[in-house]
Amino acid sequence: MLERIHSTEDLKKMDVEQMEVLCRELRKFLLRSVSKTGGHLASNLGVVELTVALEYCFSPPEDKIVWDVGHQAYIHKMLTGRKDQFSTLRQLDGLSGFPKPEESECDAFAAGHSSTSISAALGIAKARDLQGKKNHVIAVIGDGSMTGGLAYEALNNAGRENTNLIVVLNDNQMSIDTNVGAISKHLNSLRTSNRYQTFKDNFKQFRDMVPVLGKPAYSVLEKVRDSAKLILLEGAVFEGMGFKYIGPVDGHDLPELIELFQNVKKMHGPLMIHVKTEKGRGYRYAEERPWDYHGVSAFDLRTGEAISKSSKPSWSSVFGSKMVEIGRKNKKVVGITAAMAGGTGFEKFQKEFPKRFFDVAIAEQHAVTFAAGLASQGMVPVFAVYSSFLQRAYDQIIHDVCMENLHVVFAIDRAGIVGNDGETHQGVFDIAYLRDIPNMTILSPKNKWELEKMLAYAVNVCTGPVAVRYPRGTASEFGGSLGAPLEEGKAEWIKKGRKIAILAEGHMTDAAAEAVRLLEEKGLEPALVNLRFLRPLDEETLLDVARDYEMIFTVEDHLRKGGMGSAVLEFYSDHGLCPSVTNLAFPDKYLEQGTQAQLFARYGLDGEGICRKILEKLGENYGG
Amino acid sequence: MLERIHSTEDLKKMDVEQMEVLCRELRKFLLRSVSKTGGHLASNLGVVELTVALEYCFSPPEDKIVWDVGHQAYIHKMLTGRKDQFSTLRQLDGLSGFPKPEESECDAFAAGHSSTSISAALGIAKARDLQGKKNHVIAVIGDGSMTGGLAYEALNNAGRENTNLIVVLNDNQMSIDTNVGAISKHLNSLRTSNRYQTFKDNFKQFRDMVPVLGKPAYSVLEKVRDSAKLILLEGAVFEGMGFKYIGPVDGHDLPELIELFQNVKKMHGPLMIHVKTEKGRGYRYAEERPWDYHGVSAFDLRTGEAISKSSKPSWSSVFGSKMVEIGRKNKKVVGITAAMAGGTGFEKFQKEFPKRFFDVAIAEQHAVTFAAGLASQGMVPVFAVYSSFLQRAYDQIIHDVCMENLHVVFAIDRAGIVGNDGETHQGVFDIAYLRDIPNMTILSPKNKWELEKMLAYAVNVCTGPVAVRYPRGTASEFGGSLGAPLEEGKAEWIKKGRKIAILAEGHMTDAAAEAVRLLEEKGLEPALVNLRFLRPLDEETLLDVARDYEMIFTVEDHLRKGGMGSAVLEFYSDHGLCPSVTNLAFPDKYLEQGTQAQLFARYGLDGEGICRKILEKLGENYGG
Repeated sequence: MLERIHSTEDLKKMDVEQMEVLCRELRKFLLRSVSKTGGHLASNLGVVELTVALEYCFSPPEDKIVWDVGHQAYIHKMLTGRKDQFSTLRQLDGLSGFPKPEESECDAFAAGHSSTSISAALGIAKARDLQGKKNHVIAVIGDGSMTGGLAYEALNNAGRENTNLIVVLNDNQMSIDTNVGAISKHLNSLRTSNRYQTFKDNFKQFRDMVPVLGKPAYSVLEKVRDSAKLILLEGAVFEGMGFKYIGPVDGHDLPELIELFQNVKKMHGPLMIHVKTEKGRGYRYAEERPWDYHGVSAFDLRTGEAISKSSKPSWSSVFGSKMVEIGRKNKKVVGITAAMAGGTGFEKFQKEFPKRFFDVAIAEQHAVTFAAGLASQGMVPVFAVYSSFLQRAYDQIIHDVCMENLHVVFAIDRAGIVGNDGETHQGVFDIAYLRDIPNMTILSPKNKWELEKMLAYAVNVCTGPVAVRYPRGTASEFGGSLGAPLEEGKAEWIKKGRKIAILAEGHMTDAAAEAVRLLEEKGLEPALVNLRFLRPLDEETLLDVARDYEMIFTVEDHLRKGGMGSAVLEFYSDHGLCPSVTNLAFPDKYLEQGTQAQLFARYGLDGEGICRKILEKLGENYGG
Repeated sequence: MLERIHSTEDLKKMDVEQMEVLCRELRKFLLRSVSKTGGHLASNLGVVELTVALEYCFSPPEDKIVWDVGHQAYIHKMLTGRKDQFSTLRQLDGLSGFPKPEESECDAFAAGHSSTSISAALGIAKARDLQGKKNHVIAVIGDGSMTGGLAYEALNNAGRENTNLIVVLNDNQMSIDTNVGAISKHLNSLRTSNRYQTFKDNFKQFRDMVPVLGKPAYSVLEKVRDSAKLILLEGAVFEGMGFKYIGPVDGHDLPELIELFQNVKKMHGPLMIHVKTEKGRGYRYAEERPWDYHGVSAFDLRTGEAISKSSKPSWSSVFGSKMVEIGRKNKKVVGITAAMAGGTGFEKFQKEFPKRFFDVAIAEQHAVTFAAGLASQGMVPVFAVYSSFLQRAYDQIIHDVCMENLHVVFAIDRAGIVGNDGETHQGVFDIAYLRDIPNMTILSPKNKWELEKMLAYAVNVCTGPVAVRYPRGTASEFGGSLGAPLEEGKAEWIKKGRKIAILAEGHMTDAAAEAVRLLEEKGLEPALVNLRFLRPLDEETLLDVARDYEMIFTVEDHLRKGGMGSAVLEFYSDHGLCPSVTNLAFPDKYLEQGTQAQLFARYGLDGEGICRKILEKLGENYGG
């Protein structure tokens, strides 16, 4: 069946039995494909029937399906002409792991971060209304994403706008409020068939019995009837926001899903369809441990084991272990995560100090203001968060943490290029958006031992807001465990030299050292400084460098605009100095997917690239 | 009575009658005081009894009261020892119009932006638990603030944490969900007295009647009983999130409020108390038109009329009128506001094009992603928003608008120093946080005619994301309506000169021109450029300036770090140039309240200050 699908048109020619075969084939294809390339697995296994039913009942690209977060859109991609590109999934210049309008007009809206789908779908729906069109607009959002404030803001607005909008709540019971999950399937069938009428009749009967119960009970019953309709039939929380609620339905029952979607096409106003799915469905290991198969690298289908596993600890794991050690000594320390205890390595701390650990769900804004509240009372909250997700809490950092100079520690994981997740996840804005904020301190470690020292410093020595940024992947061991002690506001000289000085940010010290080695082969003697403190900058070292060297290069794992290099330029300008400074960083664009190594190489930020750029600059200056 | 209050201790010595007299005196004092200084009036008139009851029943600073937004904390300030400072309210170095821990330990948490109180209060409550303390923590939040996603994230988290936390929902019926408002006062009395038991008994009776109705109805009734308790007695939406709900109560009935707060002190877990208040209560004009008396300048108490009113239009008003004109010609244009149609001047557009205008409530994140959805379908959304509030939507700008290069227009009002609102409202981060984002265009007009041109350009010529930033206050008429036509990416030469060139951002062109005049008096001939485009910068003009002038000064209404001056430094560095550039902007700190003129003067950014700084720099360079 899968061979016959080149677009959703082909799907429409099938009957339900054929589509059930197709679902089995899609799962097989998905498993085979992702086991080779890596990618998001469990969530896609969970939405096979849901996606087939949606694409059968609706007609993209005319009908707009907006996938929240987007990592569950693989089946959608297979059904919309991109099956043959799955061998390139998440690879350099290959198929994206997220919806991407450039790839297909069937991808109505790009995503990668959570909770955006209802807002975007509402915008698309209102545009349709204003343009006099009649197409359907569907947002598909997971229960996890429903904890994000943005989703709530959107529901609240959609309920008032009273436009035709279908929200499919893909509930795999990972985190949502149990009230919603408690509403029975039976009530759903009441709602979508004419048994609803029977139900209403029952209620009438009911009211006729009331005189028996007396007056006070009667008025209560009146209210019960109205509110029971709300909470039982339409989901109180959603109905409170103006949505009609239908559900829950079995998200793996293809005929039922198709019947439901065909029915709701005729309904009006904002509609919430609650679909229950099982993450990892159809693959034993993923069903048993869905979180382990959320995002995977290549693995052996038979055993479920990853094919190659680094034996060296990741930055996240170094963070996690160190935080346990810090937490044992300093009882003021509390940990905070926004649904990322595993990804950030914070679960070790969570296990040892459950009362001092808070998983606030996907809610970065709240995480930060909550941290500010804790810090205002003398606790030391550490919020571990991916760089690109911290963007969500920018105002809270400015307004709730830094304004009052509160001691909140931001452990910024996945800072810099993250690799295969691509554009949406690159952590390349954080230096720019944090270094403008008064009272903030920003640190970046060159290797795992420095990360440990910086965490201890951030928790035990700092008294105001402090961010430690470190990248994704295996923790660097560059330079070994020795190195200069960490001193407040001080950079580390890796090596003195002549004429050329390189100022490196964090783990880029490693690549810069490789460039130094290559330049030395050419007879040059560049100096190398590990800046350590990105804010405040080490004034003394920067002045020394300007005095003693002719050409200064900055190297960072960040966008060039507003980054560390830019801070160095500001510093010299403020001191009335004008040394030759060249900033090496990522250019002014959204950075594509690929391995970290591939991207550093492509943008000239590996050892070789840095060496080449320095030689080019030397060529300009000395005609060499 | 008011004379007797120096701290909340004095309040505790009063009886209810005395406190009712006190409430009347507080209103009088508030009216007299704010009519002289200006400030937030209607919201403070609305919370007189609520504040007195809270401070009587609870004991700050041990008990922590967190005021959301904070502009309704005047009564709190009067009761906590700051009554005598009200003549300096919102003035340079005077009493802040918001809670400020530096002012008093009774101000538990600083605020200025909305929807932060529940998050902060939850952090404070968890710190208390971990520290083994027993004090009360109370968040006071308006119904308007409840539309912000942050408040929802916090409720969702607080419900799970099951700590003692009181949320007072101050409902002045400005925007919240009507379901909440529909729950009757009668039910509140059921809840807080033992009539609750009677009610539960009635229900038991109820169930006994069920056999009469038959089996299906019975199971429905079972569910009705549980859910009715939820929605009727405890507020479905809040209960769904794990809160006990009590309300609504009359927020102007002091004895009832006191009884209620004394009772709830004994209750456990997260509690939502729904209080109905009237904005503007006790002052006829404010009761009739609460929005007009939300934030006021000095006014005549007798007539309610502002004492001095500028006859010249504000930047907001110029924006509003121009948008109507643009909207008439271009039917693709839609307007979006986050509860600020009045403040941003967008209400004219709203009136003329109600179907093309969306007030999404206090929900900046949603506003931006909703705009992205509209733009993805070819509409041209214009989101008018204050600079400091747009900080809330930083991730949405990066992830939903700019990544796909969508044509969304950001009309950034209150950009730069805003004056008396102080630290929380200064719009001094936006250049820094926007200029790092790929695909973004940033414009800044020198006067009202340029604002008009830029809006037309942003809507009708641009095809990607574009921001136009302009300040608070009376629109500048500097230079008149003529001036060079607006050309894509081009700066405007106001005046050529010798040796010294000043590059000015937007309305700072006016102050820079004054500096030019003062410098000319001293025999210098500075050139002056109005940059117009802050991103992308006008390369040709910047190269010309570096070639033809010895010293370059940049002037902007923004923080120095990461601002326009920093962009100029980056530009020259990227071109391998090293001209002498001095950036004049605000220093690396949270900027205090005061009039705009006072702050420009204090930080050397008025004409005189700019002149002085240029002369100083000349002195350094030429020993002058």
